[in-house]
Amino acid sequence: MGPDRQRTRRIEVFGLRLPLVREGDDLAAMIVRAAEESGTGIEEGDVLVVSQVVVSKAEGRVLPLTALEPSEEALSLAARTGKDPRHVEAILREAVEVLRVRGEVIITETRHGFVCANSGVDLSNVGEGMVSLLPLDPDLSARRIRGRIRELTGKEVAVIVSDSHGRPFRRGAVNVAIGSSGIEPVLDLRGRPDLYGRILRSKQICVVDELASAAELVMGNADEGIPVAIIRGYEYRRSELGVRDAVVRPREEDLFR
Amino acid sequence: MGPDRQRTRRIEVFGLRLPLVREGDDLAAMIVRAAEESGTGIEEGDVLVVSQVVVSKAEGRVLPLTALEPSEEALSLAARTGKDPRHVEAILREAVEVLRVRGEVIITETRHGFVCANSGVDLSNVGEGMVSLLPLDPDLSARRIRGRIRELTGKEVAVIVSDSHGRPFRRGAVNVAIGSSGIEPVLDLRGRPDLYGRILRSKQICVVDELASAAELVMGNADEGIPVAIIRGYEYRRSELGVRDAVVRPREEDLFR
Repeated sequence: MGPDRQRTRRIEVFGLRLPLVREGDDLAAMIVRAAEESGTGIEEGDVLVVSQVVVSKAEGRVLPLTALEPSEEALSLAARTGKDPRHVEAILREAVEVLRVRGEVIITETRHGFVCANSGVDLSNVGEGMVSLLPLDPDLSARRIRGRIRELTGKEVAVIVSDSHGRPFRRGAVNVAIGSSGIEPVLDLRGRPDLYGRILRSKQICVVDELASAAELVMGNADEGIPVAIIRGYEYRRSELGVRDAVVRPREEDLFR
Repeated sequence: MGPDRQRTRRIEVFGLRLPLVREGDDLAAMIVRAAEESGTGIEEGDVLVVSQVVVSKAEGRVLPLTALEPSEEALSLAARTGKDPRHVEAILREAVEVLRVRGEVIITETRHGFVCANSGVDLSNVGEGMVSLLPLDPDLSARRIRGRIRELTGKEVAVIVSDSHGRPFRRGAVNVAIGSSGIEPVLDLRGRPDLYGRILRSKQICVVDELASAAELVMGNADEGIPVAIIRGYEYRRSELGVRDAVVRPREEDLFR
């Protein structure tokens, strides 16, 4: 086998710095501009991973803590966890159920069906005294950004809105997809032959989560302001299915709730 | 901000095809050769992600099903799940506990502390009538490959041994690190300032899992035989800590067991 035979798939992942995002900003236009200024541009088939916090900001899903009047339940849970009662109030409003509480950790199921810490309500990177909530419909957020990028550039891309989730069994959070558009979220390899021709019975891969995780490698640390990554060279299947329908596991299918 | 200011971090991920691996093979030497033939070579600071199945093969962690005499418990669990009783026997031998059983799914905690389907015992990509078991000590496997690559090339790299794990709450498996060497597995950002100078209280990122997930994007589908990925351009902290000590969450710390 010579070099050509050996050379296999190669993908590139690069980060884009954005100016501070404010409510009503045209996030897609900011991304297109940042991509042009970086010299990379946007190409047909790129996967764009956009951090939830800038999507929430552009969509006005940011609140001052002073706008939140804590309920009795919020006050009690705040006392138990040592959190700000107004932060807890936001967490409870975004949740359909509190699943676990230990120390300062509150794990909920959000209205979208995500199981995560604090219903995704975050005090980081939004300014003192403010909280960011998850987008109301992150699949729709992804679809709008994708549509606007098509409008501005003529390019068809996939868009993933990402957030950092802790996991049972393993320490540390990883970036996952909370919304997606233009890409089949879960690749189904069942029925395909393995190296020896044996038919695979159970392999399904959540590629949107793997792409979100790859993106965080360039988004980097808290203070760097790189909320967008472009992944180039990854061949994906196009689809109009989003994270909510393809990835979120219904409770009755879940073995650990 | 001009192009230079805008250009941020960029990483590359590429796959390496290997010949079929057999017990006793010098896997590190095969990787070095494949990297040379592909024209990429191996560079100082590369992260090498190696799929568990080739590590298990090289280490002789592959058994014929006929070598496994099913216990009463294996027979009963096989009847319940529709699996081959000898496959179930291997799953039980690798487990410290069976955590969940539903349909044909058996979730166990392995001797390493991983919570995964079938104790990581796999019938895929090992040939008809054979099963692969996880390496006995995947951190040690990673350390040995890393040492041997240093010996062969003079380059210091990080090595991750990866496997595909399903998750609670979300559909589809993702590639995670089951062993690592030369890289700090979990990046701790607590105490660092966010964009607005607010000190982060809770951010820890499992970078070895994110790297493993990024790698699967080029390892691709079952029938392609790309068991190794090189990730180039990712700046990591060096460490001698492995997955077992840094990532595996002890039961008493886990909210979902």
